[in-house]
Amino acid sequence: MMIIMKTTASEEEIAAVTKRVESVGARAHISRGEELTVIGAIGDREHVARLGLEGAPGVDQVVPILKPYKLASSQLRGGERTVIEIDGRKIGGQHFSLIAGPCTVESRDQTLDTARVVKEAGGSLFRGGAYKPRSSPYSFQGLGQEGLRLLAEAKAETGLPIVTELMDVRDLEPVLEVADVVQIGARNMQNYTLLSEVGRSGCPVLLKRGLSSTLEELLMAAEYVLKEGNEAVMLCERGIRTFETAYRFTLDLTAIPVLKELSHLPVIVDPSHAAGRRDFVTSLSLAAAAAGADGIIVEIHPDPDAAICDGPQALPNSGFAQYVELVERAAAVAGKELSSV
Amino acid sequence: MMIIMKTTASEEEIAAVTKRVESVGARAHISRGEELTVIGAIGDREHVARLGLEGAPGVDQVVPILKPYKLASSQLRGGERTVIEIDGRKIGGQHFSLIAGPCTVESRDQTLDTARVVKEAGGSLFRGGAYKPRSSPYSFQGLGQEGLRLLAEAKAETGLPIVTELMDVRDLEPVLEVADVVQIGARNMQNYTLLSEVGRSGCPVLLKRGLSSTLEELLMAAEYVLKEGNEAVMLCERGIRTFETAYRFTLDLTAIPVLKELSHLPVIVDPSHAAGRRDFVTSLSLAAAAAGADGIIVEIHPDPDAAICDGPQALPNSGFAQYVELVERAAAVAGKELSSV
Amino acid sequence: MMIIMKTTASEEEIAAVTKRVESVGARAHISRGEELTVIGAIGDREHVARLGLEGAPGVDQVVPILKPYKLASSQLRGGERTVIEIDGRKIGGQHFSLIAGPCTVESRDQTLDTARVVKEAGGSLFRGGAYKPRSSPYSFQGLGQEGLRLLAEAKAETGLPIVTELMDVRDLEPVLEVADVVQIGARNMQNYTLLSEVGRSGCPVLLKRGLSSTLEELLMAAEYVLKEGNEAVMLCERGIRTFETAYRFTLDLTAIPVLKELSHLPVIVDPSHAAGRRDFVTSLSLAAAAAGADGIIVEIHPDPDAAICDGPQALPNSGFAQYVELVERAAAVAGKELSSV
Amino acid sequence: MMIIMKTTASEEEIAAVTKRVESVGARAHISRGEELTVIGAIGDREHVARLGLEGAPGVDQVVPILKPYKLASSQLRGGERTVIEIDGRKIGGQHFSLIAGPCTVESRDQTLDTARVVKEAGGSLFRGGAYKPRSSPYSFQGLGQEGLRLLAEAKAETGLPIVTELMDVRDLEPVLEVADVVQIGARNMQNYTLLSEVGRSGCPVLLKRGLSSTLEELLMAAEYVLKEGNEAVMLCERGIRTFETAYRFTLDLTAIPVLKELSHLPVIVDPSHAAGRRDFVTSLSLAAAAAGADGIIVEIHPDPDAAICDGPQALPNSGFAQYVELVERAAAVAGKELSSV
Repeated sequence: MMIIMKTTASEEEIAAVTKRVESVGARAHISRGEELTVIGAIGDREHVARLGLEGAPGVDQVVPILKPYKLASSQLRGGERTVIEIDGRKIGGQHFSLIAGPCTVESRDQTLDTARVVKEAGGSLFRGGAYKPRSSPYSFQGLGQEGLRLLAEAKAETGLPIVTELMDVRDLEPVLEVADVVQIGARNMQNYTLLSEVGRSGCPVLLKRGLSSTLEELLMAAEYVLKEGNEAVMLCERGIRTFETAYRFTLDLTAIPVLKELSHLPVIVDPSHAAGRRDFVTSLSLAAAAAGADGIIVEIHPDPDAAICDGPQALPNSGFAQYVELVERAAAVAGKELSSV
Repeated sequence: MMIIMKTTASEEEIAAVTKRVESVGARAHISRGEELTVIGAIGDREHVARLGLEGAPGVDQVVPILKPYKLASSQLRGGERTVIEIDGRKIGGQHFSLIAGPCTVESRDQTLDTARVVKEAGGSLFRGGAYKPRSSPYSFQGLGQEGLRLLAEAKAETGLPIVTELMDVRDLEPVLEVADVVQIGARNMQNYTLLSEVGRSGCPVLLKRGLSSTLEELLMAAEYVLKEGNEAVMLCERGIRTFETAYRFTLDLTAIPVLKELSHLPVIVDPSHAAGRRDFVTSLSLAAAAAGADGIIVEIHPDPDAAICDGPQALPNSGFAQYVELVERAAAVAGKELSSV
Repeated sequence: MMIIMKTTASEEEIAAVTKRVESVGARAHISRGEELTVIGAIGDREHVARLGLEGAPGVDQVVPILKPYKLASSQLRGGERTVIEIDGRKIGGQHFSLIAGPCTVESRDQTLDTARVVKEAGGSLFRGGAYKPRSSPYSFQGLGQEGLRLLAEAKAETGLPIVTELMDVRDLEPVLEVADVVQIGARNMQNYTLLSEVGRSGCPVLLKRGLSSTLEELLMAAEYVLKEGNEAVMLCERGIRTFETAYRFTLDLTAIPVLKELSHLPVIVDPSHAAGRRDFVTSLSLAAAAAGADGIIVEIHPDPDAAICDGPQALPNSGFAQYVELVERAAAVAGKELSSV
Repeated sequence: MMIIMKTTASEEEIAAVTKRVESVGARAHISRGEELTVIGAIGDREHVARLGLEGAPGVDQVVPILKPYKLASSQLRGGERTVIEIDGRKIGGQHFSLIAGPCTVESRDQTLDTARVVKEAGGSLFRGGAYKPRSSPYSFQGLGQEGLRLLAEAKAETGLPIVTELMDVRDLEPVLEVADVVQIGARNMQNYTLLSEVGRSGCPVLLKRGLSSTLEELLMAAEYVLKEGNEAVMLCERGIRTFETAYRFTLDLTAIPVLKELSHLPVIVDPSHAAGRRDFVTSLSLAAAAAGADGIIVEIHPDPDAAICDGPQALPNSGFAQYVELVERAAAVAGKELSSV
């Protein structure tokens, strides 16, 4: 922590801050400039943070120096990247994962048909929602346990590992019976209870960035999972909320190189929810792949017009093979190879 | 719903949209302009929304006409405002509530001292956190059950009703034993499981706006509670996330008149979390009261410098009586009177 | 400037940064922590900034310590506030200014009638636009010179000083003949040419914050005017752009206490453009006054429904006297008195 | 325009709105639903907009149906894309332009060396700033006329067309003597005076999106240029302002497919200003090219560490050829070919 004093700070105020820094066992390193004084607090970040020096007399601002996350930090592995392996599919490093499937599991046919399409086109994992967080209590909330059952069937038939969302800690057990990867949705990114429980489960996690979460907050949320000993966390950029209204969310592709610099964890991009309209999904997918993403999670549907949920953003199953081909070429520009079995 | 067709839409595309609108039992009302055609879909909003016409050929945009919330809508009560009564304190209408207390319950002395200060200054309710959502897993997470016990003691001594946060559905029962108002934090505004459970409990709810939630989303979150038959919901503006970095969050005071136009529910403002620094708290409190807020929830502490959590934004107990006096004057400009017993 | 090195920075990288800092005549003050090194660069901010050390090998981030503005800084006057006097009306300090008038000058009657209403209700200055920045080239662009003439007539009759906008440096001369205060609109806040010319003119300036400008950028824009020797700058908050769509702009009232801490310049609030609808204007005006603003600039019109421009946000002249009375009460809560003659 | 009435609107209010719509020569088309009434106003958009019906009694909201821009609209050319040709380089359609050069012209060597590198690597145009908009009045403001002279020399030697920024209408003439493309910077995107003058000049324009401008506003700014008869406008995405602080601006790559749907004008991306750091520039460039941008404008420098301005974001000249090769491959995925001569 650097504590930047006001230009008008008195010697007493500087001494008082110094004393408080030392009171928690940290070392205070005073640096006097021509106009103002900066106090470096060297020691346990949490202890110094708890002092709340932002409010102390004479203090202008407090600047954190160390990153607040530890296990998610790229430093932890000395620059080496985490590669997660799920039933032979690799995520991270030089591997590119294509996770595809419907927004929500609607029926046996819709689910199995789509799973077959993903399998044939060389997709890496199959996604589908059984529990759906909906902004309206009057909207369809997912098939629940019946949805999980259909996902299990899709897996049995195609061999594709399953990615599905968990919303309620009380559903953890049934979800774990089916899921190879538990998805934590954007709205639950800071549901710390859920994060800790998923962490304890040991199951790989796809953690979506909250729609107005900073990258640092995303890494702190990952830290809640990692702290429980679960090292298999994928970070997922899915669009942030900005002032623009011409489309749904602003896909933040700068997050890709930045997260890769800050963390060793794989970075996945969800172009479907950001765009909100299928016309834009291919462009954004190619952009994500070329920018070096470790994978894409995309929504497809046998008949998007008939989808119960988020149809406008789903690509039709029929064009999926061609889509995969293009994405593969874009990933190759970034030096990555599609991971399927 | 108004479906605005592209200027290039063909007759076939218009007919196809019309047919799909009618397929869910809605009526399609076609309006042809010089340059384009608009199709009004009259019928059940959810059914039409589920069609996902945003993605259909020839469609430019889909504009919702009816508000998606029903029970939270000002229309429900024909313009009359909800007044919630808690142990004789009224919230809403011409009444102004001052909810005060520490960010987090730290100790018996800190809690009881502060409760006495709130009581003596004429505060309406007492707030204090036993469970704390923290962005870092390494930060203090609250005293939990012991915190609840101290809140109960504060209530027993001062008679002040208690506002405290619930984070995990599994803590609902112990929290309900103490809380007169259950607070749902900003990070949990879209934790639908939690909202439904609190709705079913029947206990009054203080619902904080998510830091990048629109006012419509806030009202939809309230709808989750109301739908369970719980009519006692207070909406709480606590600052939104913007590009500005000179302070913590941007307090959105326009939300006050807007929410009062859209909804019959009381609107509370939290100036402490928005500001992040106590220097700004009084200005923002006066602004909120003068703008017509139904109440303020503010953090105070016997010794802010020693606070475990959010000390920089806490007002000292010692200045609280004077603060109440000023806020009372500002509320009077908006035609409101402080509600205490 | 504090240069925070990466935890992986080598001794060579630290030495290289130190050398570059010293190469521009600054002093490098090295502070070694357990995990990383911080280099304080003490000397001319501009010189060090020009080094662009953000990109240098081993550098994690560069944190500015000193504020980039000097003349706008509260430090310049040792905490004393600037009070601008215009024909006997005082702006700043304990004085509250009410600047009112139509968005745009439309006709002789509309202008003179409104000016009389402002005068009678005790308004401080009269505002009216002759040149209008419009997002559409097909919209009405203002009466230009004829508008200036009508403003001059309004001033001659009522004695009210005139606030009017300048958009084009080539109109400076005619505008200065009429204006007592030159308004720089939000879209031109970073039109540096315009700022410098207005600075050189010596005429008082009302500088509107750009719709996504930080408070630091606003103060830097003020610095462009101050640097030319013109000390009469009023900062004007008029709403910022955020994700919320329930109203036009988010009025940032936290800017009031923050700007007053950072700068000695008066802070004016424009509630009309932020709200976009007259229903919200009074609430926001009271909030601004109670928060300690030095004044309000508000739009009124004899017949808002017939206004050429921004009618929906204009208050009707008929209710203005009552509005002034309320605002006066709110300003009094913040310890301020209405300044009129 | 669709005028959506409140559910509580009376027949008189509906009649009054209808009357006002008809008063400006538009046709009112009334559509009565079960809960509310919608009035379609068919006629001149500007006339109806001027009515300001948002503020009228009984009106809930006013929804524009037609786009406010005409000449920039994709409809104008029936889906055909504008291809701008400059000295044999084509911009738009299937052509990909690489515009490169230093942020600012610093010296003869720096300028000529860089121009040669751009030429040799197959770049399309050469960029360099002679007039620099700087947020601080104390920063270097560009070489001005001397800078223009050096750009002319670079062009004479390499044959590369020149892109350079215009900030002040009074500099139009000298800039036009050198510029093949006049750049309008983000801060001047709504400097309507400047836009109109550049429009009248007939010189091709690179129009940067304001940092918090919507895409609609960008197209309206383009409309100011097009309206003067100048059809050669390139739209440039350069990052928008959001809450994220881990990098400088959020590059909005969704703007590429969206702008291409809305408009026939070419879309260029500036990855340098968005990133603010060279480490991220290549990733973002590849993303932009793969997403279908019509070109990139990127900053390079012989010795970025010694650059006077924005050095941290400049790529070194030495790696430029390799960069071009990668970008070319990404553009090919989107079906585009690099345009050079």
